[in-house]
Amino acid sequence: MQVEISRDFLDQLKENIEREDKDAVYQLISEMHSADIAEIYQMLEADEGRFLFTVLDNETAADVLIELDIDERKRVLKNLPSEMIARQLIDYMDTDDAADVLGELSADRKDEVLSRMEDVEHAGDIVDLLSYDEDTAGGLMAKELIKVNENWNVVTSIREMRKQAEEVDEVYFVYVVDDANLLKGLLSMKKLLLSSRNSFIRDLLNTDFISVRTDTPSEEVSNIMHKYDLVALPVVDHIGRLAGRITIDDVVDVIREEAEKDYQLIAGITEDIEPTDKVWILTRARLPWLLIGLTGGILVSQVIGVFEADLGVYPEMAFFMPLIAASAGNVGVQSSSIVVQGLANQTIKISDTFKRLLKEFSVALLNGLTLALIMLTYNILVKSSLALTMTVSAALLSVILFASLFGTVVPLVLDKFKIDPALATGPFITTSNDLMGLMIYFSIGRILYGIF
Amino acid sequence: MQVEISRDFLDQLKENIEREDKDAVYQLISEMHSADIAEIYQMLEADEGRFLFTVLDNETAADVLIELDIDERKRVLKNLPSEMIARQLIDYMDTDDAADVLGELSADRKDEVLSRMEDVEHAGDIVDLLSYDEDTAGGLMAKELIKVNENWNVVTSIREMRKQAEEVDEVYFVYVVDDANLLKGLLSMKKLLLSSRNSFIRDLLNTDFISVRTDTPSEEVSNIMHKYDLVALPVVDHIGRLAGRITIDDVVDVIREEAEKDYQLIAGITEDIEPTDKVWILTRARLPWLLIGLTGGILVSQVIGVFEADLGVYPEMAFFMPLIAASAGNVGVQSSSIVVQGLANQTIKISDTFKRLLKEFSVALLNGLTLALIMLTYNILVKSSLALTMTVSAALLSVILFASLFGTVVPLVLDKFKIDPALATGPFITTSNDLMGLMIYFSIGRILYGIF
Repeated sequence: MQVEISRDFLDQLKENIEREDKDAVYQLISEMHSADIAEIYQMLEADEGRFLFTVLDNETAADVLIELDIDERKRVLKNLPSEMIARQLIDYMDTDDAADVLGELSADRKDEVLSRMEDVEHAGDIVDLLSYDEDTAGGLMAKELIKVNENWNVVTSIREMRKQAEEVDEVYFVYVVDDANLLKGLLSMKKLLLSSRNSFIRDLLNTDFISVRTDTPSEEVSNIMHKYDLVALPVVDHIGRLAGRITIDDVVDVIREEAEKDYQLIAGITEDIEPTDKVWILTRARLPWLLIGLTGGILVSQVIGVFEADLGVYPEMAFFMPLIAASAGNVGVQSSSIVVQGLANQTIKISDTFKRLLKEFSVALLNGLTLALIMLTYNILVKSSLALTMTVSAALLSVILFASLFGTVVPLVLDKFKIDPALATGPFITTSNDLMGLMIYFSIGRILYGIF
Repeated sequence: MQVEISRDFLDQLKENIEREDKDAVYQLISEMHSADIAEIYQMLEADEGRFLFTVLDNETAADVLIELDIDERKRVLKNLPSEMIARQLIDYMDTDDAADVLGELSADRKDEVLSRMEDVEHAGDIVDLLSYDEDTAGGLMAKELIKVNENWNVVTSIREMRKQAEEVDEVYFVYVVDDANLLKGLLSMKKLLLSSRNSFIRDLLNTDFISVRTDTPSEEVSNIMHKYDLVALPVVDHIGRLAGRITIDDVVDVIREEAEKDYQLIAGITEDIEPTDKVWILTRARLPWLLIGLTGGILVSQVIGVFEADLGVYPEMAFFMPLIAASAGNVGVQSSSIVVQGLANQTIKISDTFKRLLKEFSVALLNGLTLALIMLTYNILVKSSLALTMTVSAALLSVILFASLFGTVVPLVLDKFKIDPALATGPFITTSNDLMGLMIYFSIGRILYGIF
């Protein structure tokens, strides 16, 4: 059952751990879900956590380990002998989780753990999975699945499925293969329930299924599962042999991670951080973008320096510098974020760049004219000089047009060069637009103050 | 099978539609998944799309309708008579989809459609679902599920399940209830496969299951399914009777929508937009935050006006105005985004606000000192005046401390008052920090220029 972890409960647990009372600790946590135990583990001191692990049975310990943050997991494994990791933890994990955990170890340690595993077939499956790139269907999939041969009948199939089912946690689909292990179709549990026991599988299977290849990128996997509302997805190799299956919970992790990564980039944060992380980790994650912003600020100060003479003659131009810079920044972030989201959910295709730019230009023109008109009215009302009035509105319109095109083009270009387009959001776009915005502002000012 | 929709294909389809050749159109799309047909529909002109719908059988038409964007769906339904919507579309939908679609109609239209439905039991289920708040488990769940009585044996259960299975697309879990429909546990298909046909369900069921109540908020539902890696989740009423079930694909939609909403708010966009939306919708979504930024910019210009005398005496202070404003903005967005993400994935609890602020203060102090030191070195190197050097560094540190606390507090306060904390990200935080940042800068300048 799901639980709220109360302060009382935690105090009681810590007390029992301090008294090294294994039975009492076991009593407290034995009924809990591994995800809850992992949450508790993260609230304990390092030595308390170590004691907690000694109380767990192997199956639960393996489950808890998978639920931990990557850093915590590394800390737990660092202190354990390879044989223990192999026989008391990895042997109890599903192949996909085992491959993820082993992938986090050093190459030497990984080989050592693999060589100590008792279940050689299981070890072989894990080695297979480790050969795939993490960000592909091969890196997401698990080897555990239930498959039947198209030439079997229902009775034989159920008998074989019983054997296979012991290895698999949950059965969502049964995969149908031919003698060469080529994936022929899916068999739903529903169909199996509804059919007579002598029917042949080849007459029951659904051949209208969706599969991905081991090298399909994980973002595409997540888009496919989302688009077609799939709970599980078979993975085949280059010639169509069944290699594994991906379940939706793995893809939910991909979706969450992608969304968090994009969010952190637009917010100007460089690492995947949690509010519970240590102060220096939080500082380290935030400093890079602040430094970029600072560098931008220094460059801006030099741009202003270049126009110092103008500022001396028309000091009121300084009043609207922040307004111009902020508008450029805001428009730039809006434009780049729309492209980043569009690329992520595939509503933008790189082929229609020109159409995209034309549309962005129209939007920017509408917004720019509105804002320029408002500033025109404002400056007339507060009786600013004609030159300042014209400069602010003309610069605002130009800056908005420039910032929105720049904000659109940069992520598209990054994407073309296979760089994460989300890098072009947040402080990068605001800083560059600040710089360009003020240059435009002063240049227009120089011209218009000459005229009016 | 999944497909890439090519230009050739689309041209061919449009040609056949123009010739009103139903057979040819049917040939082209009959093998396609409803999600693909929906994608094609969105590439067609309004009257072409209408023709496409006339070719589809009821089942497929219902599926395609669900896959459409809400605006497109409304447009399709507006032109159809209520009886047609009831008997050719709604009758073919799962209860949760039907309730979603009906929920988008006006109250009168909804009642009219419901009254025309042929399957009265189905209509009753939909009416039940319509009574729940959209953002709760009740609003997410479907009524279609497979349930068995704990007092049945395996043979009876399989017979009953066969009857029920005709209504349900996929069977992931079998729910076990008692005579009063109270949820007693789950029965996995695997267990059913492995058991002898005379066993009683009460001896096979898994009582260690997780359920939610109809009024559990959907964000909590998504967190629970994510935390415990669940594919389906039973929903019970206030006394524990089985009311429905939620599948992970519905929750994936919730996760995506939440993430997109937060992303758009930090990017300064007010509506859920796609790059494919019309120009005026894109403009409308972007204008509000630009106007807020503009208002901020006008206020900033007035703050500068207040300090005009100082700027006249120390014009070099203008050089670093954008640097101060940008740093304040960047720090503020970082801080507020960390809080927003922490609240969303529940790593921040409102109860530890004080600890949160203390940590944020430490991070800000470290970052602020680093940046202030860099600017100190820079200003010494470029031989700025002592007063300017001290002012910039002192102001930078103060502004970073202020902006990070402000960025942390505002989303926490919004959350306390049940307002979406993500409103405190993006242009709001940058604009307020611009304003406060420059006030701090000039105030410190006034003091320090007096001293040095």
